[in-house]
Amino acid sequence: MAEKLTGTEIEERLRHTDGWTVVEGKLHKELTFADFNEAFGFVARLALVAEKLDHHPDWSNSWNRVVIDISSHAAGGITATCFELAAAADGLR
Amino acid sequence: MAEKLTGTEIEERLRHTDGWTVVEGKLHKELTFADFNEAFGFVARLALVAEKLDHHPDWSNSWNRVVIDISSHAAGGITATCFELAAAADGLR
Amino acid sequence: MAEKLTGTEIEERLRHTDGWTVVEGKLHKELTFADFNEAFGFVARLALVAEKLDHHPDWSNSWNRVVIDISSHAAGGITATCFELAAAADGLR
Amino acid sequence: MAEKLTGTEIEERLRHTDGWTVVEGKLHKELTFADFNEAFGFVARLALVAEKLDHHPDWSNSWNRVVIDISSHAAGGITATCFELAAAADGLR
Repeated sequence: MAEKLTGTEIEERLRHTDGWTVVEGKLHKELTFADFNEAFGFVARLALVAEKLDHHPDWSNSWNRVVIDISSHAAGGITATCFELAAAADGLR
Repeated sequence: MAEKLTGTEIEERLRHTDGWTVVEGKLHKELTFADFNEAFGFVARLALVAEKLDHHPDWSNSWNRVVIDISSHAAGGITATCFELAAAADGLR
Repeated sequence: MAEKLTGTEIEERLRHTDGWTVVEGKLHKELTFADFNEAFGFVARLALVAEKLDHHPDWSNSWNRVVIDISSHAAGGITATCFELAAAADGLR
Repeated sequence: MAEKLTGTEIEERLRHTDGWTVVEGKLHKELTFADFNEAFGFVARLALVAEKLDHHPDWSNSWNRVVIDISSHAAGGITATCFELAAAADGLR
């Protein structure tokens, strides 16, 4: 299992991400799509990535908007795998 | 467009639903599945229903849990179509 | 219900599509994606379109490849709605 | 990588499956659902399983029908993982 990263490690890694912040202890990003169809295509692809990594984000959707929150319940914080999932999400757009 | 239902109409209709309540002015239900796979199968099916009805829920997913909130932005409240979407969601399980 | 198009009408419309042909009486296209994930994102989006149009393609998927065949069982041929679905599929890429 | 099973091994394993046969060298099953929505829910769940196993079936869909063919290109035949995917597909219904 990936270990919880320190605040310093998280800050360092955040510098290399695009648009991710930490909100309530989770990696957080809000995405806007053209419409529901495009948003759902993203959600479906993210679901595949999550299942493959066996690391699932909290996500919500309201028509063309998708909000993603990533943390590890097992590690009690943000891990390297959380950043891997975040990077994979970015790679889907 | 479906018109906003009155509080009385909503109360009456809620009696015929299974597990739906009104939270912050929206039809609300929380569902638990066996795992992420089953939860996502439900999400995919509800997405089809929503697109067909052209009425999309606010929803969130955290592994095996799905929370659904339904209201009409256009009508400024809960409409007959909201209940139609809720019934369709129930029909998927 | 959309009516079956004549051969001449189909030929005319095919000129305005990108990569669609008629194979065994159906609008036919073969698509290749980067990987299964991208192919499935397309599949999920086309499913939404099909359900909304109430016109569903015959399709198959083999990892990064998707083959689509569109015709109308009800009309016994290719209709304007078939071309609408084909155009919508093209719009998803 | 899983190794190709022998004909005898395949016959033995097929006895423990429900409705799978070997067609053109692949594990084959045809499924019928209530409608497109239910069929697509199955497809979406199968996609998650396939991505997790990193073993993807050939599948096709025509409204409420889904046809699945499973083999291993790498092994040049049917492997234990093919049966694992088949069993997982059965577990989704």
